Parts: sequence; structure tokens; C-alpha cells
Amino acid sequence: MNSDMTIGKLAVLLAVSSNNEENKIFKKGEELGYKLFKGRAGSMDGEKIFAAVETAAKRRGIIQNQYREEHTLYHSILDAFHGVCRGELALGSILRSVGLIFSVVRGPRLAGDYSDGEWLAVALYGTIGAPIKGFEHEVMGLGINNI
Amino acid sequence: MNSDMTIGKLAVLLAVSSNNEENKIFKKGEELGYKLFKGRAGSMDGEKIFAAVETAAKRRGIIQNQYREEHTLYHSILDAFHGVCRGELALGSILRSVGLIFSVVRGPRLAGDYSDGEWLAVALYGTIGAPIKGFEHEVMGLGINNI
Amino acid sequence: MNSDMTIGKLAVLLAVSSNNEENKIFKKGEELGYKLFKGRAGSMDGEKIFAAVETAAKRRGIIQNQYREEHTLYHSILDAFHGVCRGELALGSILRSVGLIFSVVRGPRLAGDYSDGEWLAVALYGTIGAPIKGFEHEVMGLGINNI
Amino acid sequence: MNSDMTIGKLAVLLAVSSNNEENKIFKKGEELGYKLFKGRAGSMDGEKIFAAVETAAKRRGIIQNQYREEHTLYHSILDAFHGVCRGELALGSILRSVGLIFSVVRGPRLAGDYSDGEWLAVALYGTIGAPIKGFEHEVMGLGINNI
Amino acid sequence: MNSDMTIGKLAVLLAVSSNNEENKIFKKGEELGYKLFKGRAGSMDGEKIFAAVETAAKRRGIIQNQYREEHTLYHSILDAFHGVCRGELALGSILRSVGLIFSVVRGPRLAGDYSDGEWLAVALYGTIGAPIKGFEHEVMGLGINNI
Amino acid sequence: MNSDMTIGKLAVLLAVSSNNEENKIFKKGEELGYKLFKGRAGSMDGEKIFAAVETAAKRRGIIQNQYREEHTLYHSILDAFHGVCRGELALGSILRSVGLIFSVVRGPRLAGDYSDGEWLAVALYGTIGAPIKGFEHEVMGLGINNI
Repeated sequence: MNSDMTIGKLAVLLAVSSNNEENKIFKKGEELGYKLFKGRAGSMDGEKIFAAVETAAKRRGIIQNQYREEHTLYHSILDAFHGVCRGELALGSILRSVGLIFSVVRGPRLAGDYSDGEWLAVALYGTIGAPIKGFEHEVMGLGINNI
Repeated sequence: MNSDMTIGKLAVLLAVSSNNEENKIFKKGEELGYKLFKGRAGSMDGEKIFAAVETAAKRRGIIQNQYREEHTLYHSILDAFHGVCRGELALGSILRSVGLIFSVVRGPRLAGDYSDGEWLAVALYGTIGAPIKGFEHEVMGLGINNI
Repeated sequence: MNSDMTIGKLAVLLAVSSNNEENKIFKKGEELGYKLFKGRAGSMDGEKIFAAVETAAKRRGIIQNQYREEHTLYHSILDAFHGVCRGELALGSILRSVGLIFSVVRGPRLAGDYSDGEWLAVALYGTIGAPIKGFEHEVMGLGINNI
Repeated sequence: MNSDMTIGKLAVLLAVSSNNEENKIFKKGEELGYKLFKGRAGSMDGEKIFAAVETAAKRRGIIQNQYREEHTLYHSILDAFHGVCRGELALGSILRSVGLIFSVVRGPRLAGDYSDGEWLAVALYGTIGAPIKGFEHEVMGLGINNI
Repeated sequence: MNSDMTIGKLAVLLAVSSNNEENKIFKKGEELGYKLFKGRAGSMDGEKIFAAVETAAKRRGIIQNQYREEHTLYHSILDAFHGVCRGELALGSILRSVGLIFSVVRGPRLAGDYSDGEWLAVALYGTIGAPIKGFEHEVMGLGINNI
Repeated sequence: MNSDMTIGKLAVLLAVSSNNEENKIFKKGEELGYKLFKGRAGSMDGEKIFAAVETAAKRRGIIQNQYREEHTLYHSILDAFHGVCRGELALGSILRSVGLIFSVVRGPRLAGDYSDGEWLAVALYGTIGAPIKGFEHEVMGLGINNI
């Protein structure tokens, strides 16, 4: 990873990283001044994905418990969820479920450039499919908003 | 990159890779039996993104000039474009444009496992924004279909 | 309110009016030959909003218990609900709920002009947000169809 | 039915056929080398429509129990469901339910022309409406994908 | 065709009928009291499909030149167009075009039953695909509204 | 208007106000510390609506020429445009055009309560319809985001 790191690339790389790759990304991101978190959520119910990301982001102090920060986070999850669902924001009601890894990253759009304030990125990566083991393929979503 | 590589992760990593990272990903992917391509497309017209990916994929022999393969590619681009647009498949008509890097990857869902035939992944990564330099943020989309 | 009153403006004003403003709007509307109703509905379940408006409109005699009138009402609620949801017709399944005031107005598109028959307007106004008190902002929707 | 029969027309005709018309369509389709099935599903829950079609198609051997075939079937149901829902893939959550006849047809796009491999068509035909008897109108959807 | 004919089934059968089948359907429909029309429209521009259906329906006297009738027709075309597009109401802007046959039918929901007034059905049937000859598959849409 | 004024209600009332009502709303809003603007935009091209609102908001100093403020404004227009379009963000491409009055309001969610920072509301009100004079009905949209 070179110096032209960005908030979105960090979120994407963190979400797709395997266990032994993720430490390098956390370290790189933190050196560049970002706050980062990575978690896991799977469900046939969309709201459980939203709740898992929101709860984690608040507990880890990535956002403050304040509506305007929560609102930015919500819309970043929603934007990323569009990438996962690709057209219809529905899981169980159209007989599919997801197993996702999520990352939340807070900081400037471009590493080191604070002229445009802080932004919040959420990446979702994992699988979507029928409720049958192995009947699934990968999906990815990314949402970024100003905080 | 470890041995549990997948078609989607390859497509995502290739799309977000910088110039000096991409060779490693091409090499790794090819060793695992995948066909890969990376290109660039930017526009206020959605159809130019579709055309750029389709033209490149045919020229490079990633798909054959046959409707069923073209149809799979089309739906993979469309799925990835949903991640870019996040809700409304519109660019210029809602006053925004994109600058994207795309990757196309063909092979098994899981590296080395041909029991479920070949699949096609398209990843789109770049920026979306107002037609004003710097007024943009990152977006990402991924589409995967059986070929 | 001047004489160029319209069905949609009446519905919007009635929905956003405070308790002490609403009587003036009811009176004005009725003088102009409109049937008007105002009610309240809040939920994480979209169907409860639809049911509340439909039940009220039937009970108050704004529509007759006939499919073609019910169909027009349904599509007016659906159109207004698009304004509330702004892109994805989902509440609880994407972890949000609404508290809404609704108005239903029946009469001509333009006050006094019956040359184009009767129309039905539904306005929805209130708040959408996280299931946390105060974590919400205002939303508004309007749906109009020929009856 | 003349010799320029197609997979989609077969699926549509089978879905809208009355009991005494359907045998002629089955016979014609089978003579042309197609596999066909017709069933019935009604619900306020979208997933029950998906499950009914998937279960029937597997049991009758129209698709094999393999992810790539199940994935093609899923997307054909989803495409057809768009025609039924016309804009928002929601039933009970926006207070409506469906009573549908479905057909599944497997074979070439154009009867007798195997140059482009096999495709899968799903047609859905029936009524959508309020949960009140007779308060409903007809809907139709068709989805076709390469298998 | 038996006596339990409906407006939607008539529209669908008329749209998918070949030249030598269509006269029987016109005759049957007219005997049952319906007004019917069948035409053809193809384009990469959605508005040309709308304009072709609207112009034909007005010229043939299926609707009167009055806003409430035009509004019902518009929404029936829009509903049918959802079935054609299956998720995103876009043609050329996502690099696809359609070649469609359309039918417009006016009359009661169920043949002979005028207790619920007149309704309007629009069916669209044809192909969607890449702007390459033969790279296309069938699509179908149906829209019905009270007039 | 009483003291429990809110940013959304102000935006809605300003957008629907007639010429002789609007001064009272401007005055009331400004007394409560809000910045307000009202303008007019009509087109078959969605981007012209976006451009008209953005240009006006920048010229009148309601937002600064900074990406994070422009991004908030863009999403507020987009949210309001959903209310206008009700399902598909398309105008000319589905043969319809709009004539809109827009309002932009900046300030706290609830008048006088700055504990949650500043927000931006955009309201769009006017008519949508066929490109034929008088063949149109009213529409309304409201979008609110944190700035």
C-alpha cells in the first residue's frame, strides 16, 4: 500500500482481507490517522446487518452517540447494502440470505488531506445465496458519506 | 494472498490495486487458472461503461462472441453498476459522472474447484461525483454470474 | 389561501398543519367542494400505514367500498409512500420506522373545475429514523390519481 | 401454434392457459424438445412464491440440484417477479397479496435452434390485490436466463 | 378461449399472437365487448415506446383525449414497462434496446361483468438485448388500471 | 405558524406558498435563524432540476463551495426528487416532464435547537405530466440531510 491511500480503498481492503492480512491494513490505516473496525454479520433479515454495523461502530467509538453521526453511518450502510442487494433491498422476502464481513473507516477522503473534513466509509463483503450451504456467490458494497 | 482465493476477491483486489500492485494479482490469478483483465472507463453516460467493459472482455478473449456469454457478462456489469449507483441506475440524468477502473475475471467460484463450472466476475471501482474536479467520492460494485 | 387552490396543495397543507391551523384548512377545502380527512399512523411495518389510511378513508366515506375506488386510493398511498421512503419501500427491514400524519382529499384537480372528474390525493408527513427517540428527520410524500 | 415457437411464448401461453388449453401446449412444447412445468402459488410473502417455483422445478427434474442451475432459476423467478410487482419487490409489507400460476420451461431460445445452448424461462400470471376477495387485477411476469 | 375471459388474458394473448392467430383474438374480444388494438414499437429510447402506445390508443379511439384517460393509459404502459425492464427503467443508458409488440384493451376486468366499471390493459411482448442482431431474449409486461 | 417550527415544515410551506404567502414564511424562517431560498425549475431532463437547485443554493450562499456541503445538498435534492418521481428517477425517458418550485432551507432540525448542528432541507413542489398543456398533476418531494 502506497501513500495515495483513500478511505474507500482502506474499507474495501479491510473487508476482503483474510485474518493474516488484516493486521497490516489496520496498522497502515491507523498510521494514516484513520479509525477502523472490522466485524461479521449474517442473516436473512436486512435489519440485523444494519444493527450489527451500528452497534459495533458506536461501541468502538468510531461514531459518537449523536443523531447526525448516526445518520451518516446509516446512509453509508444503506449505500453499501445496495451493492450487496443489486437492485432490490430485500433478503429473506425474496428467499436469499447473506453472510458478510463489514468494515467501518472514519477519516479524510484522501489520506492526510483534512481540508474537506471527515468522512465515513462502510464496506460489506461476503456471500449471498439460497438458504442451502454452498449455493451462494460473493457480493460487495461500499458506502461513503460526509460526517 | 493465500490459497482460499475466490473469483470475487480477485476481481475486487485487481480493481482497487495500484499500478505496482496489479502485476502480483494478475500473476496469482493466472496461476490459479483464472483469466483476468483490467481497464478504465469514465463517463456521464452509463452505456459507455457497459460498452467499455464488453468490448475489452471480447477483445481479450475473456468471453466468446456468443450470446449466452455476452448475456452473462452484461448481467455481471449490471450487478456491479448497482453498487456504483446505489439505488438509481442513472449518471448524467441526475447530474453525476463516474471515473472507474474495471476488472473482469473468469473461472471457478473458488480457486481450483471446477465442480460448479465457470463463473464471470466484474468489479467496478473509482469515483462518482459532481462534474467539478475533486467533488467526488469512491464507489465500488461487484457482479458475479454463471457462464 | 387564495382561490387557485388545488387538491395537492390542500392535502399537503392539511398534513403539515398544526392542530390550530387545521380547522381553517378543513373549512376552506369543504367550501371548495372537497372531502378531506386527517389521521395519524406510525410503524416499522409499511402495511400498517397502508391499512390505517385505507380504513380511515372508507369509514369517513371518502371512498366507496368498491374495488376501482380502493385501487385508486392504494396507488395514491403507494405514490406518497415513495416520497417517505425515497428509493426503497422498506422500513423495519432496513432498521427504520416512521411516525406520520396523513391526509386524504377527494375532489377536482383544480378547485371548482370539474371538467376532468374527481381525483384523490394522499399526503404523508412526519418523521423517519432509527428506533431511538429523537434520532429522526422529517419526510413528506404526495400521491394523486384519478378516481 | 406455428413452427416459430420460442421459449418465452411457450412459458407465457402455458401460464395463461385454462385447464382444457394446457394439454395442447404441453404436447406442442414437448414435441419441440422443451421441458415444461406448470404450478400454482399464492401468498403475501414473496419468498413463498420463490420456494414454490424452485421446489417444483427441482422435483420435476427441470433443473438439476446444482448451484449454477439453481442460480439461473432464481434469477428467472426474480425477473418474472419484477413484472408482477412493477417497481417494488414487496407484497405483504405494502398490504397486497398475489395468487399466481407459474410455468417453467427449459430449452433453446428458438425452437429447434440449439446453437446457443439451453435457456430457462419462468412465467408468472395471476392476480394481485388487497386482501379482500375480488379486489384484485391481473399481473404477468416473464424471466429468461441462460443455463 | 372459454367464457371466463379477462382483460389481462386478452391483452397477453393478443400481444404474443402470431399474425394468423390474432384475428381470432380480436373477434373473440370484440364479441365480449372489449375494444382492442395491437401495434409495434422498437427503440433504445423508452419514451418512444410510451409515445407509440399513446398515439395508437388515441387515434384508434381506445381512450378519449382527456387527461384522466391519458393518465390511466400512461400508468398502464409504465406498469407493463416494468415487466420489460425488470428492475431499472432504462434502455439505451444501460446499452440495451427493445423490439416490442404492444396490445391495448379496454373493458371490464372480467368479460361481461360491468359492475366495477371499465379498466385498461396494456401488454408489451418482444425482445430485449444488446444492439447486436440475435443477441436478445424475450420479455413481457402487463399493466392494468381503472379508467 | 407557531414556535415548534421545523426545517422540513418550513421548506414544504415555502415551496407550496403562493406569491403573497411567501414573504411571511421567509420572514418567520429568518427570525428563527434559518437561511431560505425559493426558485423555479422545469424540464424533461432531471439534471436541469439538480443544476438549478445547486446553482441557486451556491449563489445565494446557502451552501459554501466545498465538496462536503455540495454532497449534502446533492443528496437532499436526490431524496426530494424521489418524491417527485415516485419509483423511477426518470422524466423524459419515460415521456414526462416537470414544472417545479423548489425551496432550500439551512438550519437546525427543530427551530432554536442547535444541539445537533445544521441540516439542509430541499423541497420540490409542482406538476408532473405528459408534454401536453393541462395533462399533469401535482407532485411533492422533501429531502433532509446533515451538513
